[in-house]
Amino acid sequence: MNKKGVLVVVSGFSGAGKGTIMKQLLKEHPDTYGLSISATTRVPRPGEVHGREYFFVSREEFEQMIDKDELIEYAQYVGNYYGTPRNYVFSQLEQGKDVILEIEIQGARKVKENMPDAVLLFVSPPSAAELKRRLVERGTEREAVIASRLSRAWQEAQGVEDYDYFVINDDLEECVQKVHSIIQHEHARTMRNHALIENIKAELKSFAEGE
Amino acid sequence: MNKKGVLVVVSGFSGAGKGTIMKQLLKEHPDTYGLSISATTRVPRPGEVHGREYFFVSREEFEQMIDKDELIEYAQYVGNYYGTPRNYVFSQLEQGKDVILEIEIQGARKVKENMPDAVLLFVSPPSAAELKRRLVERGTEREAVIASRLSRAWQEAQGVEDYDYFVINDDLEECVQKVHSIIQHEHARTMRNHALIENIKAELKSFAEGE
Repeated sequence: MNKKGVLVVVSGFSGAGKGTIMKQLLKEHPDTYGLSISATTRVPRPGEVHGREYFFVSREEFEQMIDKDELIEYAQYVGNYYGTPRNYVFSQLEQGKDVILEIEIQGARKVKENMPDAVLLFVSPPSAAELKRRLVERGTEREAVIASRLSRAWQEAQGVEDYDYFVINDDLEECVQKVHSIIQHEHARTMRNHALIENIKAELKSFAEGE
Repeated sequence: MNKKGVLVVVSGFSGAGKGTIMKQLLKEHPDTYGLSISATTRVPRPGEVHGREYFFVSREEFEQMIDKDELIEYAQYVGNYYGTPRNYVFSQLEQGKDVILEIEIQGARKVKENMPDAVLLFVSPPSAAELKRRLVERGTEREAVIASRLSRAWQEAQGVEDYDYFVINDDLEECVQKVHSIIQHEHARTMRNHALIENIKAELKSFAEGE
């Protein structure tokens, strides 16, 4: 209907499967979705390529990007900056790609402030017990790690009301379909169809005046 | 996910096919959708049954319903009142049925005022030219009638921005599927899942405190 892409933020509890959902969406619909590439000040790991995994920049360059308002959102983790460059995202949206950002709640809020028509999705297991079960089942995590993840999940849950959609990941394939369908139907939102609506109005007006 | 039904308002240009779309939805998904039955002061036509086509009430009774705030919206046409009784709609929503109201823009606005979580859909042909073509094609309408419908469509178009979704009816079956899908995904809106979210929060809190 409309041509411009939709900016989508996906967040969720660790263990909710949001990473897997995003990979599936990009795999199943490569022409529909575009990836966002983050900028970071951290050092590239072996095999990582500038412009593929990340845009690797210096601390000075990153702070210039902040000053010039070139980032939709950014945050610091363990002494390094991570952020979403506006230009890269915008050019994909203009090409009609729906761009999915996988970020946390603080970043999600900043995106919504900067771009009110972004769609915020929160992915959750069907219950907290199921979240715990999944964390335990991985087997690789020690008890203390699981406890800290659950405590973190509780903190994250406080911000869920700021999201537009709350999507349960019970069955992965069903959840991928649901997220895809939600995003695609967002294209039918009135606010994303101003140009089309204005065209129809103008045409109706000319008919009415022509009679 | 959540159990309560979604209240949906469907409006659209005359000739956009909204009546047909609604009939199809009810036919294809009889357990999902509930119908709203309007109250009216007009005299029943032969074959019309109280509580099936309409709730037929006296002018006095209707005005009492207004005074008691028993109507979600109401309007007058050609000297008669038409309105949507709140109780009937609410009981269906409580039973988990999604209730669709086919009403015009003034009524749609009143519904949104009274029930902010209602979903407003506007159905339109792909263009004004196509709307005109459909009106002409019916063959039964005289030119003056077509002109007045187009002029009315232009007036209606002024309020389209108040709707949540702008749905193009190009192919009927596709449009029915799209409307169905939009309504069903509305159930995943965060604002419709407070109880579930509060449960998960409480459960996470007990895990965090238990550690």
